[in-house]
Amino acid sequence: MRISDLARRAGVPVGTVKYYLREGLLPPGELTSATQARYTEAHAERLTLIRTLVGVGGLSLTATRRVLAALDDPPATLHDVVGTAHAALHGDAEASPAALDGAREVVARHGWDVRPDAPALTDLGAALDGLVAGLGEDLGGAGLRGLVDRYAVAAVELAEGDVAAVPDTSPELAVRVVVAGTVLLEPLLLALRRLAQEDASARRFGKTSAGVSSPTGSRSSPS
Amino acid sequence: MRISDLARRAGVPVGTVKYYLREGLLPPGELTSATQARYTEAHAERLTLIRTLVGVGGLSLTATRRVLAALDDPPATLHDVVGTAHAALHGDAEASPAALDGAREVVARHGWDVRPDAPALTDLGAALDGLVAGLGEDLGGAGLRGLVDRYAVAAVELAEGDVAAVPDTSPELAVRVVVAGTVLLEPLLLALRRLAQEDASARRFGKTSAGVSSPTGSRSSPS
Repeated sequence: MRISDLARRAGVPVGTVKYYLREGLLPPGELTSATQARYTEAHAERLTLIRTLVGVGGLSLTATRRVLAALDDPPATLHDVVGTAHAALHGDAEASPAALDGAREVVARHGWDVRPDAPALTDLGAALDGLVAGLGEDLGGAGLRGLVDRYAVAAVELAEGDVAAVPDTSPELAVRVVVAGTVLLEPLLLALRRLAQEDASARRFGKTSAGVSSPTGSRSSPS
Repeated sequence: MRISDLARRAGVPVGTVKYYLREGLLPPGELTSATQARYTEAHAERLTLIRTLVGVGGLSLTATRRVLAALDDPPATLHDVVGTAHAALHGDAEASPAALDGAREVVARHGWDVRPDAPALTDLGAALDGLVAGLGEDLGGAGLRGLVDRYAVAAVELAEGDVAAVPDTSPELAVRVVVAGTVLLEPLLLALRRLAQEDASARRFGKTSAGVSSPTGSRSSPS
């Protein structure tokens, strides 16, 4: 197909396709004349994937490049697929040494079998750092530990289902499913959590009542 | 305190403090001479919050400004706190009309009480769009609906705990806890999920075996 057909198939402007070609994210087509090239079904699939990674996943070009490299050269073992995909998708979070220790402590407490250099440890450390700085004394009765443990329980449930759904027939397919599952399911999870929060808030606080202490301390109950 | 003390307290460079002052994220200090100003404890707290929102939360300046505005002018009812915080934190996801319908259908199926203009509906629609485009036929047996429902169950569990933890004594405090809970707990959740995935993967696939079909179809089991 021509570049215009390719662009239409994936739903991106021709200029964007040319940009991905220049950046090497998309391999060149087969030249049919000095100014025209022909593209294949594989080009269309890859372009759709790039569009999804960049558009829905919000990945940077650098992260997209790393993901595509992982797809082109999948690791030899299925277990390494998860680590490779996570490394490719890892952002630029930073964590203090103390926060990293805290992250390792969480992993040890839950008995998780995780590589000591897993990039998500840095993410977890940064999140712990931020929670202490941002919530501090507002963390409530169960404190940081209670909060983290509550979230860890949900994470384990999700992860069991995620990993059970990874096809074990080929590393190529496994990488694709793990990458897509990470990039696409993270926004799904966050959107569902916000919607469920709104519902839980409607049930706890009611939708019309003031239900809030006034500055002088008097308080009206939801009717 | 002077600007240098303020910067040290919040752990940001003086240049960054000056930038936040210029951008109006941080209110001006009290002038003590033509070139010096004095800052208060309230400045230090706000600066720490900005650092957390931008640094850990990865918020843009625009989103940070919206969040600070919500904090300065909290809504009248506790239920509106969640909606206001989510609106302030909302990114720039876009969803097709069909995907938005799909998102509303998910909300209706779970009986969630959600405003028809909730910004997370757009996020959910974009995530559904991406899942179909990115995973398509790799979605497996239970399909998109089974996957979304599995994630919705976890989202409800998390949201119940989140909303139960919102203090109901003042809308100011409630906004702070909801904003921090959204910005700081989302990275926590994603990091924990990735770590739990690595653990589940180690248990399912083993850590050293090849455990993958070779291109010719022969397969070695984990030993």
